[in-house]
Amino acid sequence: SRDGLADAEQAAEFIERYHAENPEAGPAAQRLRWVRTEIDLTGTYRHTTDELTFGARIAWRNSARCIGRLYWKSMRVRDLRAVHRAAEVADQCVEHLRQATNGGRIRPTITVFAPDAPGRPGPRIWNEQLIRYAGHRTSDGSVVGDPRYTEFTTAARALGWSPPHHPGPFDVLPLLVSTQDDPVHMRVLPPDAVAEVPLSHPEHPWFAELGLRWHAVPAISAMRMSIGGVDYPAAPFNGWYMGSEIGARNLADTDRYNLLPVVAAHLGLDTRSTTSLWRDRALVELNIAVLHSFTEAGMTISDHHTESDRFLKHLAKEEKAGRRCPADWSWIVPPMSGSLTPVFHRYYDTDHLRPEFVSDPSSEA
Amino acid sequence: SRDGLADAEQAAEFIERYHAENPEAGPAAQRLRWVRTEIDLTGTYRHTTDELTFGARIAWRNSARCIGRLYWKSMRVRDLRAVHRAAEVADQCVEHLRQATNGGRIRPTITVFAPDAPGRPGPRIWNEQLIRYAGHRTSDGSVVGDPRYTEFTTAARALGWSPPHHPGPFDVLPLLVSTQDDPVHMRVLPPDAVAEVPLSHPEHPWFAELGLRWHAVPAISAMRMSIGGVDYPAAPFNGWYMGSEIGARNLADTDRYNLLPVVAAHLGLDTRSTTSLWRDRALVELNIAVLHSFTEAGMTISDHHTESDRFLKHLAKEEKAGRRCPADWSWIVPPMSGSLTPVFHRYYDTDHLRPEFVSDPSSEA
Ligand code: HEM
Ligand code: HEM
Repeated sequence: SRDGLADAEQAAEFIERYHAENPEAGPAAQRLRWVRTEIDLTGTYRHTTDELTFGARIAWRNSARCIGRLYWKSMRVRDLRAVHRAAEVADQCVEHLRQATNGGRIRPTITVFAPDAPGRPGPRIWNEQLIRYAGHRTSDGSVVGDPRYTEFTTAARALGWSPPHHPGPFDVLPLLVSTQDDPVHMRVLPPDAVAEVPLSHPEHPWFAELGLRWHAVPAISAMRMSIGGVDYPAAPFNGWYMGSEIGARNLADTDRYNLLPVVAAHLGLDTRSTTSLWRDRALVELNIAVLHSFTEAGMTISDHHTESDRFLKHLAKEEKAGRRCPADWSWIVPPMSGSLTPVFHRYYDTDHLRPEFVSDPSSEA
Repeated sequence: SRDGLADAEQAAEFIERYHAENPEAGPAAQRLRWVRTEIDLTGTYRHTTDELTFGARIAWRNSARCIGRLYWKSMRVRDLRAVHRAAEVADQCVEHLRQATNGGRIRPTITVFAPDAPGRPGPRIWNEQLIRYAGHRTSDGSVVGDPRYTEFTTAARALGWSPPHHPGPFDVLPLLVSTQDDPVHMRVLPPDAVAEVPLSHPEHPWFAELGLRWHAVPAISAMRMSIGGVDYPAAPFNGWYMGSEIGARNLADTDRYNLLPVVAAHLGLDTRSTTSLWRDRALVELNIAVLHSFTEAGMTISDHHTESDRFLKHLAKEEKAGRRCPADWSWIVPPMSGSLTPVFHRYYDTDHLRPEFVSDPSSEA
């Protein structure tokens, strides 16, 4: 909870589940007694590293909006709860990116910083993702870069960030971290921690000349992780990209990079009538470019057909394990070619399970 | 209800809504008294033609899965409650198709046959839509035509339907109508009542040689219409097609015509890897062909971008009228290029409102 007090009921539920799914950890009774006592004495309790590792993986497994859950068991969990100072948090976010990028073979990873405790809130990372591009508002009101982050960009500038002399569409934003003792720490990401892929198209040479690029690692940093009644406000995690997140949303949404008119113009499509489906055609070519470029660059990426197949495999495995798997249809079905993917043609359990990742209202789009 | 008894509470709620939205009909009190008395005496009550017309339009307005509701006020309502015999029902379905097709300027239309009454159930139309294509199971287990209708096709044959000597992929199924007195009546649709569009592509001449076609009027005939506690089991209604219903579902679903591999092969796409997005490319070209062919043939059709814009306009109008508009996200968002349409980027009210169209479990896919 926000005041750092651990919910005893959620704690008990989590400890029981931990022991149920990890029989080698022995019976839950003794640990339960200790946790209860620790909560009585201190208002909260400390997870063992094994509990934390398990809890983080289950928080992923329970993420109803995530199509990528097949590999939940193998996520790397970095236990950095000892880290409290903002500069160290920033250091370790950089280290997270290096380890997760892994030269292109991207590894799903979570770095867990100190939890909220009574009178001692954990650190917070202001960025929605560790790597995102600035949105520079120009004097005519238009935006160079990612319009989603114009406010963040303004805040970063106010805190002293100097964007490049010629602000461009893909200027990596600095990290902003705050802790109880350090109201705000700004950190420019070192270029070698930020893998990026310049975009080209396998058939259209002009595509590369558009100068588009995207970062290789999607690392969500603004969600709270809640495990057994304990809140970890800073616990950035990453998977790899499903191509359509970049090609159908980040680069295509009209309130993001809005690139379909540009791509369509270069494709020579008739953009006067929606019925020519020029948007749909440009969308497919943009997504082909994303998948092609990442693959060429040796960066892990997957297409929406592959991730849909994997997700159905995950559902089957969960069912076999006797567990319900919550899923949110409108998030699971990819944003393009929905009905071509098998995940479109069924319904899902919608239970809300814990542990979980939670968006704070202030960080919701 | 299924036993023909009208629900008095639903009756009162409907009559009140009718008078609230139609002030020119005067106050509801007297009509309410009469309806209550009629239900007490006969178990049900008779809608006036005005009430029926209003009720049918509101049933459309309340259809949470329908993106096409902007024009709910102008639907033509054919009051054919006097029609009880199966042969007449079939006649009037044919007449419905003629009037709705209207030489290509398709008119949203509903034909309302007799309701269920105590001891006298209304007629039933067995077909899911008035026009659909047979699915002929061949000796090797494969299907020629629409696999969705293999069972219906078998039933029609058992009842005496003779498919063409060389069964083809687009053989229009006969109507099957049953009433209390006529256990089953079969009617072959006269060709002039079935407008069809041969499919061609604006840029690829080979496309026309695939010999594909689709019928112009989607007329759902297996849903019950429920108005003020009275059930109309036979009330076929039609709009016009949104192209993606044909191009992304009927012709593309793997358990329907499954044509993407065929289209992709003719486009010369690399179908060995899903990452080439060959399915997505073929999907767009197939949908371009559908929209192009209908337009060339002078048949009303709309694309998913246009219908999405119209639906948002509808939502705005409903809000302005002070009404909630229920909508089911997973049905409203088109099956292709979801995030390109504005309907993707929001949530909807999900209340369940009456009057309504209801799928009987037996007719659900
Ligand atoms: C391994 C590769 C992964 C893939 C391909 C994947 C894919 C996705 C996709 C496509 C979305 C929807 C994003 C959007 O539409 O904005 C999503 C959401 C989400 N994923 Fe994953 N994911 C992966 C790894 C992970 C990991 C490691 C975690 C956590 C440990 C995770 C947790 C979540 C959560 C919490 C959301 C919802 C985010 C929100 O509410 O904004 N995912 N994922
Ligand atoms: C005027 C043009 C219309 C358009 C473009 C349109 C469009 C659509 C679309 C795209 C669907 C989803 C179909 C699917 O995915 O299977 C749908 C469903 C539906 N529409 Fe419409 N519609 C129109 C007219 C009507 C009319 C006149 C009615 C009733 C009077 C109606 C009632 C419904 C209902 C009840 C459903 C849900 C069907 C089910 O549950 O299977 N629509 N509509």
